[in-house]
Amino acid sequence: MSKSSLTPPGVSMELHAGNRERLVAALSAHLSASARPLRGVAFLKGGEEQTRYCSDYVELFRQESYFAYLFGVQEPGFYGAVDIASGQSILFAPRLSPGHAVWMGVNTLPYFKDRYKVDFVFYVDELAQVLQSQFSEHGETPLLFLLYGKNTDSGNYSKPASFEGIEKFDTDLSTLHPLLTECRVIKSDMELALIQYANDVSSEAHIEVMRQIKPGMKEYQLESIFVGASRYRGCRHCSYTCICATGENSSILHYGHAGAPNDRTLNDGDMALMDMGAEYNFYGSDITCSYPINGKFNRNQTVIYNAVLKAHNDVISHMQPGVKWIDMHKLAEQTILESLKKENIIHGDIAAMMNRRLGAVFMPHGLGHLLGIDTHDPGGYPEGLERPKEPGLRSLRTIRELKEGMVITVEPGCYFIDTLLRHARDDPISSKFFNWEKIEIYKSSGGVRVESNMYVTAQGCKNLTNCPREIREIEAVMAGAPWHSRDTLSSTENASPKHFNLPCP
Amino acid sequence: MSKSSLTPPGVSMELHAGNRERLVAALSAHLSASARPLRGVAFLKGGEEQTRYCSDYVELFRQESYFAYLFGVQEPGFYGAVDIASGQSILFAPRLSPGHAVWMGVNTLPYFKDRYKVDFVFYVDELAQVLQSQFSEHGETPLLFLLYGKNTDSGNYSKPASFEGIEKFDTDLSTLHPLLTECRVIKSDMELALIQYANDVSSEAHIEVMRQIKPGMKEYQLESIFVGASRYRGCRHCSYTCICATGENSSILHYGHAGAPNDRTLNDGDMALMDMGAEYNFYGSDITCSYPINGKFNRNQTVIYNAVLKAHNDVISHMQPGVKWIDMHKLAEQTILESLKKENIIHGDIAAMMNRRLGAVFMPHGLGHLLGIDTHDPGGYPEGLERPKEPGLRSLRTIRELKEGMVITVEPGCYFIDTLLRHARDDPISSKFFNWEKIEIYKSSGGVRVESNMYVTAQGCKNLTNCPREIREIEAVMAGAPWHSRDTLSSTENASPKHFNLPCP
Repeated sequence: MSKSSLTPPGVSMELHAGNRERLVAALSAHLSASARPLRGVAFLKGGEEQTRYCSDYVELFRQESYFAYLFGVQEPGFYGAVDIASGQSILFAPRLSPGHAVWMGVNTLPYFKDRYKVDFVFYVDELAQVLQSQFSEHGETPLLFLLYGKNTDSGNYSKPASFEGIEKFDTDLSTLHPLLTECRVIKSDMELALIQYANDVSSEAHIEVMRQIKPGMKEYQLESIFVGASRYRGCRHCSYTCICATGENSSILHYGHAGAPNDRTLNDGDMALMDMGAEYNFYGSDITCSYPINGKFNRNQTVIYNAVLKAHNDVISHMQPGVKWIDMHKLAEQTILESLKKENIIHGDIAAMMNRRLGAVFMPHGLGHLLGIDTHDPGGYPEGLERPKEPGLRSLRTIRELKEGMVITVEPGCYFIDTLLRHARDDPISSKFFNWEKIEIYKSSGGVRVESNMYVTAQGCKNLTNCPREIREIEAVMAGAPWHSRDTLSSTENASPKHFNLPCP
Repeated sequence: MSKSSLTPPGVSMELHAGNRERLVAALSAHLSASARPLRGVAFLKGGEEQTRYCSDYVELFRQESYFAYLFGVQEPGFYGAVDIASGQSILFAPRLSPGHAVWMGVNTLPYFKDRYKVDFVFYVDELAQVLQSQFSEHGETPLLFLLYGKNTDSGNYSKPASFEGIEKFDTDLSTLHPLLTECRVIKSDMELALIQYANDVSSEAHIEVMRQIKPGMKEYQLESIFVGASRYRGCRHCSYTCICATGENSSILHYGHAGAPNDRTLNDGDMALMDMGAEYNFYGSDITCSYPINGKFNRNQTVIYNAVLKAHNDVISHMQPGVKWIDMHKLAEQTILESLKKENIIHGDIAAMMNRRLGAVFMPHGLGHLLGIDTHDPGGYPEGLERPKEPGLRSLRTIRELKEGMVITVEPGCYFIDTLLRHARDDPISSKFFNWEKIEIYKSSGGVRVESNMYVTAQGCKNLTNCPREIREIEAVMAGAPWHSRDTLSSTENASPKHFNLPCP
């Protein structure tokens, strides 16, 4: 891997200025289409620092994502405004006590104006007055477009900005959220460069883990290697809590949380499922590698791993604008079922299995999700698009058609999960499709997931992730062989996608 | 450093059972002293997992500290109760959906009962009914002692537990908080062992940073080395955000936050002030090392560093039960002023300077604070003890008399902080004590802090921290010399303290 790809790129505030421009264009087009006057201000509140319960412990602050998108502000306590007519931007910084400087350092308004390259900077306590005076031409009451809408992954609603005196303004709660969310769905080249860097750092950190892993270690030591390596390259946050699942833990999809804190001892013969991603200047990555701890795939591990890898590669080879993500999900399910059938782990008609949604027994999660400033980036279900209700499909974080500029993860998996298998076995019709003796044997090969981050291009897609994927590559790298830099085309690039014609219902 | 000290010690639930026993004893004694009946239940709510704003991102959960103290529960969403009369303990676990198991793993009530070694485990939704039936003998309404009181570091109040149906119970909001806080002030041997382990890990991680530091690196790379090394040893959380301050940044006391994210490039000739501590099973450490990035102290750096180290060592040599912490703070200030006077950085009568509180110009923070499950552990100002109002002294997080079993940090510092120096210069009387030409010269040697974690013993104190402190030790370790394990007595141990007689007002 080339060293050059691992120097943190400078972050230009033009990135965020570009994001604001896209929002202004979208808002202008929307207002004009609905014959509304071209006036008003997109107005957002940034994140606040919080103490842990009653204590004075403060978690390292990470900006609220919509605010980060528009302004790139790293500090807590800000508000920000973008004027639709002029495109001008204003930041409002918290006014801090003089004593604050001794503890936290001095940051003045000119510092913030220069740093964040906005048109104006004021203090938060000047907010109402500034908005009144700047945006009330001809005696009109200024109009504030506030951010209010549902995040379809969490089910949470964003909280619209508020301040003392807001009742004197006209407010619009419905327009901003869908438009700004849609802006975030399509990545600019500058955004892509940061996601690429987060991918470069994470890919290398994954490889560092692969090279150091051995029986007797603890799962949290794998996490520490990843975290140390990615922070060393300028990625102070991870995109999510590291999932360092080995042995039977690899079938717990979100292993690694406080109740299952990566604390198992690694055994010879175990598979490892490592789902870890670094974040750089707000933009994230989300990468999973699966491999045997001892560096050598046994036969059963090979079967399951190759089933998943084939699904991963097949999906990538079909990805291009216009393709429906739900079809890609079904393609992955079907590919995995076919591989399992070849090994007589399941038997019978694949189309019938698909109809009964039995793919979801082995892959209960969605094939992938939009990725950006949030790991599960918003915009998966814009208004009018309904989440499916069937097993497996209902776990999809999006069912959209792919568009050029989207960044989306491809992360098929095959797991042997007790509760799901028991459920299938209890159903007399479903049960017949499974070879329960074989299942019992394969259980110990654990869960396997392969996850890459894809950028959708005009004609196909580009893989931003650069980890060894083929078994021979993985075994070689784990044995100490060098790994090529991203410049060499990876086997899963897709410049000319296959025509997609899903041969199943 | 011996390898043996770095294997994470097993954590027995007897530690938390012991914590509960001390609370029951304290509550019983209190009730009996105030002639109240020996009945009621200490009832607490554990922490809740939170998403970041509207997104589904969840920061790695860390338990609320009082709840951690009593129950050691790692998972969110619990309640806990301790019966005063019987000492019996109950945990209430959240009832999770079956689908939850696929994503997070299965944890049943018997699992929690076995893991946390409490007398009973129920679901949260059974709370009101269980408390009613278990604790309402003779038709009495059960009495709940709830946690409500002020944290004197944050100014925040702990939120008393609540649940549907709580209005049917008698509640007491004033008794539990001061008693439980006081329990936390005195550490048991089992608690001490964890703080010692956190110190061992952090000391070694600091040394790893000292050995790798060099001009051209970024401050966040120092942080990454510390974080990686301490997580590798089983410390998944840090006690606080790493302060990796170099050059002029070392005079910003809480550098390292999101607005000043350890992103400066290290220069040859800079001092580094590294304030970093790992946490193990809730119990923390808080250690600062200061040294030149190039591994060699120049003359001015030597002057300031030795001034601070002398204060650190003098305080430690006087520490024993009965000593007032405010006197230790003054001792540190005075020691530093005397050293500065010797170098003609200041001049005039030390007692007069102390009277004018000029020590606070160079050391605006308190000498140290209680340390435990919180970095700034509660109990610094129990009821009746007033926070001083004078500069420097008002920053003290405690002014208590030392007691056997306390763990407290000793962290004198000497900084050249523009705003404070300007303030002193503007005052015609204060100004005369300073040699402003010399101050200008010394400014570039930056801020220096030396911080160790001390355990107060029956006759003196024990230093839990094991970092090189003498200049010759630091230079040797930075040049690659081995560092001795904790078993060798460090130079700052204090088995027989000096008699304390502060020779100033």
